[in-house]
Amino acid sequence: MRGVSIIPQTLDMPTPFPHLLSPSPASAMAPAAVVLSQDEQKRVAAYRAVDFVQSGMVLGLGTGSTAVHALDRIADLLRRGVLHDIVGIPTSKQTESIARALKIPLSDLDAHPIIDLSIDGADEVDPFLNLVKGRGGSLLREKMIEGASKKFIVIVDESKMVGRLGGSGLAVPVEIVPFGWSYTLSKLKALFELERGFNAKLRTRVEEDGKEVPFVTDNGNYIIDLYFENGIERDLGLLSDSLLRIVGVAEHGMFLGMATSVIVANKDGEITVINK
Amino acid sequence: MRGVSIIPQTLDMPTPFPHLLSPSPASAMAPAAVVLSQDEQKRVAAYRAVDFVQSGMVLGLGTGSTAVHALDRIADLLRRGVLHDIVGIPTSKQTESIARALKIPLSDLDAHPIIDLSIDGADEVDPFLNLVKGRGGSLLREKMIEGASKKFIVIVDESKMVGRLGGSGLAVPVEIVPFGWSYTLSKLKALFELERGFNAKLRTRVEEDGKEVPFVTDNGNYIIDLYFENGIERDLGLLSDSLLRIVGVAEHGMFLGMATSVIVANKDGEITVINK
Repeated sequence: MRGVSIIPQTLDMPTPFPHLLSPSPASAMAPAAVVLSQDEQKRVAAYRAVDFVQSGMVLGLGTGSTAVHALDRIADLLRRGVLHDIVGIPTSKQTESIARALKIPLSDLDAHPIIDLSIDGADEVDPFLNLVKGRGGSLLREKMIEGASKKFIVIVDESKMVGRLGGSGLAVPVEIVPFGWSYTLSKLKALFELERGFNAKLRTRVEEDGKEVPFVTDNGNYIIDLYFENGIERDLGLLSDSLLRIVGVAEHGMFLGMATSVIVANKDGEITVINK
Repeated sequence: MRGVSIIPQTLDMPTPFPHLLSPSPASAMAPAAVVLSQDEQKRVAAYRAVDFVQSGMVLGLGTGSTAVHALDRIADLLRRGVLHDIVGIPTSKQTESIARALKIPLSDLDAHPIIDLSIDGADEVDPFLNLVKGRGGSLLREKMIEGASKKFIVIVDESKMVGRLGGSGLAVPVEIVPFGWSYTLSKLKALFELERGFNAKLRTRVEEDGKEVPFVTDNGNYIIDLYFENGIERDLGLLSDSLLRIVGVAEHGMFLGMATSVIVANKDGEITVINK
């Protein structure tokens, strides 16, 4: 955890100076509480992942609030000369512009079809290191680049760990071509019609004038978000094929068997590295 | 074959009035040769398919040189009042503009998610009525609309019949997202690396200034054309899944188990209807 500054913070003890109060018997036996915010947990995990970066590597650069901490750290080590000869392959236009601003040298998959290491966040991680990704909308590019990587380290705060994919109750995204999107939506709904507590809807965004329009990916596609009340209870490999067979589906956000390591940071600043 | 005018034509007998010449013993025993051009065969098959169109139907309108004969015929029957209350769902922008010019009423899949009948050509038809489609570049829209159809009649001239898909030696198209296209191409090549006589390449077109640029589909995607010297020798269903699992592949041009009938016309003007 070199270079990580952890700001002690108590989330469930709002009193400014709890150590000045009479301690309860339980806290008297525990060391002083160090409670990291979710963003601090993300940063801790990201910095640990960057420990695996070596000079000369081709790096897949992830997208999202966790991955951006890795970008910061890589840029810092480049500036200080600790790292050199790094080539970054961004997984989104957003990451491309952040990395460019941070002066991380960039290239693409065509020039570098084999990537040494990718570092990226995830929306969910199951016990077998299967992931849900793409709430940020970059799932297709992420999957292509991370699939081209010898190592793929996933960095998450502990809230992302789930017993089964979909178990957070949040979206499992599917990228689709815009043509016939409501027909494709109906096919997705039909696939899960026997699933209790299932829902699916087109991802939208609100324009400045208040108008709701479809969210458009970097590939010019739409996203359908799938929601599972109890997580996905069926075989993930078979489900993946069923999704891909729907005409109009370009890709989905389940990353099965792709992560080689997952680095999890928790509230206490503890880091767990799970390797496949 | 109502309304079909067949212009007798001899391809290998350029003499204007062969019946005035002394016939050879062979031709003396056969009826006068009626040899249809490929385009006439397409027209014969298309007109026969339109016999199955009934007033009030929602029709999937195919794309390409064969399908355009069906459009002509449908428009003619609408004009003459033989058909009425037809709604057409075009499978491409090209078909949309042709159908609009022919005054065929149009709608889309969102308004009509169930289609009564689709009529379209194919690049190849195997003995099990599996198809290769998409040399015209509209495979994704065609597959979506024809997959939403209760009946799907394929119309071809006899040159399209093959022993196995890919057997014509011409392209089996795969629609891919432009991002990372050369990486996707390398993955497609890897899938067939043990196949003798296999090749794959990006479909291009030449602009007015002579510059070669990628061909772009109606969905803003690219096409990779696959070529098989001896046709596809592996299980088509498994191959379909393998193709769809490649990140970046949006759809492929093998239409498996989708056609309900194939109407084939040959040089002699004979029509064969093969039902599933």
